[in-house]
Amino acid sequence: MLDRNHVITAKDLSRADIETVLDRAAAIERDPPERERHAGRLLGLCFFEPSTRTRMSFEAAIKRLGGDALDMGPVDSSSATKGESLADTVRVIAGYADALVLRHPSEGAATMASEFVDVPLLNAGDGAGQHPTQTLLDLYTMRENAGGLSDLTVGIMGDLKYGRTVHSLAYALTKFDARQHFVSPESLRLPRSVRYDLHEAGARIREHDDLDAVLDELEVLYVTRIQRERFPDENEYRQVAGEYRIDAATMERAREECVVMHPLPRVDEIAPDVDATPHAKYFEQAHNGVPVRTALLDLLLDDADSGGGEETVDAADDGEDGRKP
Amino acid sequence: MLDRNHVITAKDLSRADIETVLDRAAAIERDPPERERHAGRLLGLCFFEPSTRTRMSFEAAIKRLGGDALDMGPVDSSSATKGESLADTVRVIAGYADALVLRHPSEGAATMASEFVDVPLLNAGDGAGQHPTQTLLDLYTMRENAGGLSDLTVGIMGDLKYGRTVHSLAYALTKFDARQHFVSPESLRLPRSVRYDLHEAGARIREHDDLDAVLDELEVLYVTRIQRERFPDENEYRQVAGEYRIDAATMERAREECVVMHPLPRVDEIAPDVDATPHAKYFEQAHNGVPVRTALLDLLLDDADSGGGEETVDAADDGEDGRKP
Amino acid sequence: MLDRNHVITAKDLSRADIETVLDRAAAIERDPPERERHAGRLLGLCFFEPSTRTRMSFEAAIKRLGGDALDMGPVDSSSATKGESLADTVRVIAGYADALVLRHPSEGAATMASEFVDVPLLNAGDGAGQHPTQTLLDLYTMRENAGGLSDLTVGIMGDLKYGRTVHSLAYALTKFDARQHFVSPESLRLPRSVRYDLHEAGARIREHDDLDAVLDELEVLYVTRIQRERFPDENEYRQVAGEYRIDAATMERAREECVVMHPLPRVDEIAPDVDATPHAKYFEQAHNGVPVRTALLDLLLDDADSGGGEETVDAADDGEDGRKP
Repeated sequence: MLDRNHVITAKDLSRADIETVLDRAAAIERDPPERERHAGRLLGLCFFEPSTRTRMSFEAAIKRLGGDALDMGPVDSSSATKGESLADTVRVIAGYADALVLRHPSEGAATMASEFVDVPLLNAGDGAGQHPTQTLLDLYTMRENAGGLSDLTVGIMGDLKYGRTVHSLAYALTKFDARQHFVSPESLRLPRSVRYDLHEAGARIREHDDLDAVLDELEVLYVTRIQRERFPDENEYRQVAGEYRIDAATMERAREECVVMHPLPRVDEIAPDVDATPHAKYFEQAHNGVPVRTALLDLLLDDADSGGGEETVDAADDGEDGRKP
Repeated sequence: MLDRNHVITAKDLSRADIETVLDRAAAIERDPPERERHAGRLLGLCFFEPSTRTRMSFEAAIKRLGGDALDMGPVDSSSATKGESLADTVRVIAGYADALVLRHPSEGAATMASEFVDVPLLNAGDGAGQHPTQTLLDLYTMRENAGGLSDLTVGIMGDLKYGRTVHSLAYALTKFDARQHFVSPESLRLPRSVRYDLHEAGARIREHDDLDAVLDELEVLYVTRIQRERFPDENEYRQVAGEYRIDAATMERAREECVVMHPLPRVDEIAPDVDATPHAKYFEQAHNGVPVRTALLDLLLDDADSGGGEETVDAADDGEDGRKP
Repeated sequence: MLDRNHVITAKDLSRADIETVLDRAAAIERDPPERERHAGRLLGLCFFEPSTRTRMSFEAAIKRLGGDALDMGPVDSSSATKGESLADTVRVIAGYADALVLRHPSEGAATMASEFVDVPLLNAGDGAGQHPTQTLLDLYTMRENAGGLSDLTVGIMGDLKYGRTVHSLAYALTKFDARQHFVSPESLRLPRSVRYDLHEAGARIREHDDLDAVLDELEVLYVTRIQRERFPDENEYRQVAGEYRIDAATMERAREECVVMHPLPRVDEIAPDVDATPHAKYFEQAHNGVPVRTALLDLLLDDADSGGGEETVDAADDGEDGRKP
């Protein structure tokens, strides 16, 4: 159903691809797939960097489809520590599994790995690169809460320079013609190359130092973590982090329907007192990893199955009763 | 069926609760549950401390019920190392799973975590605190071997000061009016607070320095490990550990039907020559983790399922044959 | 079907045992087992040393049979670190599972462990000792590619001194009366004891310093890794490793049908340009771990099940229609 076998970057996903996945996810939430839908199928999990929520939600997804996961385990127990190349490792695991999920610290690892395997490969994050299934679940959460994606007004705040989540999301929102407001300290603005690409794609973006400049326009406020290690000294970090932190009082200045999202884990950029407000959707967002990844796997495994066109039975053209045995 | 959704401490379990679980476990051993009983259900395993037998027996239990486990993995690969709070971690994993098992080094962690999740949470050990499913499998092993729990004469030997297993067990045995003999060196006696609580609950307890003072009365001898790190110097440790160690010769002075138990792992507090005697029940005890945890999960998942009353068909009041399609 | 319950060494497997497993594996590849064949069966994975491909292919195998795996996890999270003996650990895990797979750094560990458990135990490598399922998948790959095992001409190159894979394979090939050429540097020749045993068993073996001496006779070239740590200094290592490395140019001097195998992971003993040649079968070989281990588990679990003879229905001898309800 998707245009391609592998899912490497959010950029490669067309608006139609994205809508196909989100529609299937919504259908799956309304009406869970039958247990035997992909019985016996194995999803190879190749996480060269630790992951809790991405790994667990992929595992939940394949199990909800009746299949199972096959986990490479932590990288220090794997053949990679014996000097095996990534290409060899994924080729071997592809021999055991019907699809692969790969997270790797090096940008471009997923693209490279996908050239060596015949089964569908899903990129679950490659360094500073892409993390397309995070983008899909972000979009799904926005669509379910805001009633649609077209023409949405979204604020994205925090570390816009290093956050791969943010770049993938910005490219995808551009396909839906969203208005995007980027809020960050000077030192953590969008990289020039990303800003350039977004402009080329016709994105409607604006950049701000201060959340209050746009807070009352936002339908979605997407917060990301500002990492300590991005700053030369502790004092500078504390000051910046303090300015880009929200709490329940902040949200009183927001629109009533404004949805707060965060890719998690959070440290203290969203105060716990936001959790109890109706704005907080970050746990729902994390949970949405399951229906969205279930939908994606379902589509990819369906594609892998279908060897030919679908059988059509047209009883009207037929003297017989059209029954199949 | 249980009075509560979460299972946090053995203290909270009433005598009736305990009997419900043990009866279900016995039924499950006689007649294994049908494979599809809880098909598709996922049990989230959140072990913030390593565990072999507790984790594996929970995993075996949910799989025996037709469900599956979803393991957070070792804590050094988890979001916790990025500074995520326990409350956030369990809320996220609760979004992927139908029930959670939590082990955590901090006393009170399970109680705190249970306030943040809607699915059943089972405490698998919180620091020096509680470990209620260990207590249930201990009681099950005693009941199966001694023919009942009421009025049982139980010796508990070893580290009575720090051992969470021992405290949970003592509280539970009190509910069955067992006679309890505590055997330990002076420095590892029951904490004053535990002794006080047991007295308040009407426990029939006595304390001894020497196993031989009570060995010939015991129907059950429950041995626990004395840890090296509790002693200031190696010599003192060796001497004490030597005195609270049993071997086949020790057991010749015991009653013929006396059952030897141990929560495992043992180091050398039970000599290997006990393994071949009919007293040794510690491997059976470990194995009993599976039926007991299967029973508990079965009851909790049933409760989570039951939206309404059960259908009753009474053919006698009915003109029809009462068959269901 | 197999003569024994445990699978500890390749030496113990008779030629008939081996053929039974390989035939079943071939049948499984042609016609995958029905999903419910061993539904509910649990395979305990006890890896005291890290493993990617052996562990994952056993896990894939039991899942392809409808069963599931129960993983002890990395050894640093296990009870072994609390001082538990191997005998205790395997007895406990055998209480949770229907069969065990054991990898352990100490030679003889599998034999010792097998004496303590009632369920089938499969040795997945014990130090410098045996690794019989690797041998079975090696033989399967040779048989599938060379059309048979009898009278085959096999070259085995690299570290012949420390490689457990090589010793098991050599014993097994001897049972099929293969011609074996061992190619290695002087310092990494077959251990005297292995050479002696092979001679005693009537093996047809020859030893060489140089691959070119035999390359044009080989139907199979089995390459193994030469480890850096076997050499006192880096220079000597580099020189030796360079001489026992093959690339596409090497293979141009080989027979057209010569099959290149490697137990993986490889470092640089096979150049990547071999991958694209028709000689390269090492990824297929890794993949064959699944059908071979599936076959072995299938046979062992069948044996464990079979309490009685098989029902035979012979409709021809029967007045009735021979249908079963």
